[in-house]
Amino acid sequence: MKAGPSQEEIRRHNLGTLLRFVHLRGPASRATLAESLGLNRSTIMALTADLTAAGLVREELPRRPGRRAGRPSLVVRPESTRVYVLAFEVGVDRLGVARVGLGGTILERREAPRARGPFDPGELLGALVAAARSLTRKAGRDAVCVGAALAFPGTVRRADHQIMFGPNLDVGDLALGEALSRRLGLGVPVSVCNDANLGALAEHERGAGVGCDDLIYLHGDVGVGGGIIVGGRLLGGHEGYGGEVGHMMVNPGGRVCGCGSRGCLEAEVGERTLLEHAGRRESPDLVGRDAVRAVVDAADRGDIVARDALHRVGTWLGWGVANLVNVFNPGLVVFGGTLRDIYLGAAAQVRSVLATGAMAAPRENVRLRTAALGDDTTLVGAAEFAFAEVLADPVQVLARLRAPEDTPVS
Amino acid sequence: MKAGPSQEEIRRHNLGTLLRFVHLRGPASRATLAESLGLNRSTIMALTADLTAAGLVREELPRRPGRRAGRPSLVVRPESTRVYVLAFEVGVDRLGVARVGLGGTILERREAPRARGPFDPGELLGALVAAARSLTRKAGRDAVCVGAALAFPGTVRRADHQIMFGPNLDVGDLALGEALSRRLGLGVPVSVCNDANLGALAEHERGAGVGCDDLIYLHGDVGVGGGIIVGGRLLGGHEGYGGEVGHMMVNPGGRVCGCGSRGCLEAEVGERTLLEHAGRRESPDLVGRDAVRAVVDAADRGDIVARDALHRVGTWLGWGVANLVNVFNPGLVVFGGTLRDIYLGAAAQVRSVLATGAMAAPRENVRLRTAALGDDTTLVGAAEFAFAEVLADPVQVLARLRAPEDTPVS
Repeated sequence: MKAGPSQEEIRRHNLGTLLRFVHLRGPASRATLAESLGLNRSTIMALTADLTAAGLVREELPRRPGRRAGRPSLVVRPESTRVYVLAFEVGVDRLGVARVGLGGTILERREAPRARGPFDPGELLGALVAAARSLTRKAGRDAVCVGAALAFPGTVRRADHQIMFGPNLDVGDLALGEALSRRLGLGVPVSVCNDANLGALAEHERGAGVGCDDLIYLHGDVGVGGGIIVGGRLLGGHEGYGGEVGHMMVNPGGRVCGCGSRGCLEAEVGERTLLEHAGRRESPDLVGRDAVRAVVDAADRGDIVARDALHRVGTWLGWGVANLVNVFNPGLVVFGGTLRDIYLGAAAQVRSVLATGAMAAPRENVRLRTAALGDDTTLVGAAEFAFAEVLADPVQVLARLRAPEDTPVS
Repeated sequence: MKAGPSQEEIRRHNLGTLLRFVHLRGPASRATLAESLGLNRSTIMALTADLTAAGLVREELPRRPGRRAGRPSLVVRPESTRVYVLAFEVGVDRLGVARVGLGGTILERREAPRARGPFDPGELLGALVAAARSLTRKAGRDAVCVGAALAFPGTVRRADHQIMFGPNLDVGDLALGEALSRRLGLGVPVSVCNDANLGALAEHERGAGVGCDDLIYLHGDVGVGGGIIVGGRLLGGHEGYGGEVGHMMVNPGGRVCGCGSRGCLEAEVGERTLLEHAGRRESPDLVGRDAVRAVVDAADRGDIVARDALHRVGTWLGWGVANLVNVFNPGLVVFGGTLRDIYLGAAAQVRSVLATGAMAAPRENVRLRTAALGDDTTLVGAAEFAFAEVLADPVQVLARLRAPEDTPVS
């Protein structure tokens, strides 16, 4: 039970709200901002002045002026090249790093495929730091990094961003965020978050789920992860492990799962299972997304074995979705990563099981969609997560970053 | 994206917050309120004066004065007998109605067992209205009913409180809340809500889940319902059907469920299944809670068949809990209704499956508990739901209720 906010808290909240608006929806005139945020124009003017002074937005003529005669009104535009975050993605098959500007533009990126197998933590850190440095070197001298986040395919404890478990990618109990932040030396912490949770965030804010506040994002990599948006907010649970839908048991006594249990959704619809059903062994030449696509393509061409494999995997995927529809009553289920391909190849079977397994009321208005951000879903999610702090309290964060390191800022 | 609140919105919010504090935690001194709500004493004084003028609280000497010498300080006390709600419970085996005072005291109640079978809607309405009238007649002349809510064992659409589906209690598509509100004539709407959702609310606010903002409440009646609190708020989902954990499939091709599917948690752990496993047929003399208790008692006395029945049901209940722990990472799982007895009789088996089926990270700190409010969980939840509006904006609601009906109040 918390009392209402103070005037100063309201000002900070409004600064963050205005900045979030232009960050997510793009440049907007003062009139649009006043109408959309429900504030009067003098308040908008004062907020814009503060954000401009902080170097977060600027006002300028619209790039495509309207048709009305007379002087076009100024638009408030995020400082997309000056204010940026670093987004890291550690996948089973690839590493990715991007510099993402306020407003959501991916300014530049580095990607590297990697061979499967356990990580050498030192090597991993070295690769991430080198890629990040090559990106920050290209940023202008007045550019400022306001946050950083790393997507990881495993369970991450909210309190300290500690990676607890990554069945498909062994990094032990590495305090990856802390080590990365120290090595980068940019004065910003590196948040670590489950990759599918970040995917949910990305699709909710910039993808297939814009406008839908109750959605489920299912992410296929080697394993199956999930991210769940409830009432507009990411479901974290008691300690931040929420959304592990890949380890929902759907088939008692079924296939052995990397988590130690049996019959988990991940075990029944994951990459290895699909390839095995399709009579294809994992090979170093064809793994991950490409291997999954090859099965879907073969099924499209009429390959009976591939079709049967997709049908079997689609059945369990359908049961997983049916369970989630009953439990969450989402407005939308989004399939990302390799599940995007699998869903496209097995949509009829998924929908058929859903029709049997989900109750009529929650089933009636649920939409099934593929990730609108495609292969960038996770990286975009990491960027949004990294922007969260500056969007919540822009001026405070900027003040902290600009203060000399030896001066404590209250 | 919403801008910060206005001064008037903050005042209303603070009035609601103060009222909610004494409603949930009991009478409190101004000093306690100031400290707990983070407001200064002059603000507390002004808020208390407004709530006193509205007839919602009064200030008086503490009933058990402290040991300190001098004049004891006044405490703010909710007007528990003057301000009340009506809470209705429609169960498969019983009807219940209570008059519940601000502060949460059940002032008076009526209960009636009922024989199983479909309802005659007119008869149902008649019974509820008669019970409610006999309660309101006993309220003082200056008493005011500020809300009403009805708990129902089925899916209820949020937008219009329409009952969509009640597999164990056929009432068709009855607009029960609207009809009840009209017949009562108290000027308050009757909200209709799923019974297990209300149970979750009750245990979160007044029961085993106080202080835990991520919890799952599992409710056994004939069927199995669920209510889920995520980040302190009830999970409703896109249209209000969220929390139907009873229809999560755990056993593919398993027992036929009332929802039309097979192997749902409800089908594997519900009352009928337990009785069947225990070799006991449902009889008009021994149904519901008593029948379940008889099996648990028999198992306690060493009855092998009853023990085996509990073991079988406990296994599926364990899988249900394991799935929910993986997906939600709750801090607490609460067993209510007949699942309270079943859990007490099968706790070892439930925990054993949980240890196998849930991932280590979310399993480590989850607590399993029985409902602290016992048989009153649902009814208390209905009362809390009915109080929600007055607690959100106390003065507005009171003004509306006290205005003559023919005068529109803005």
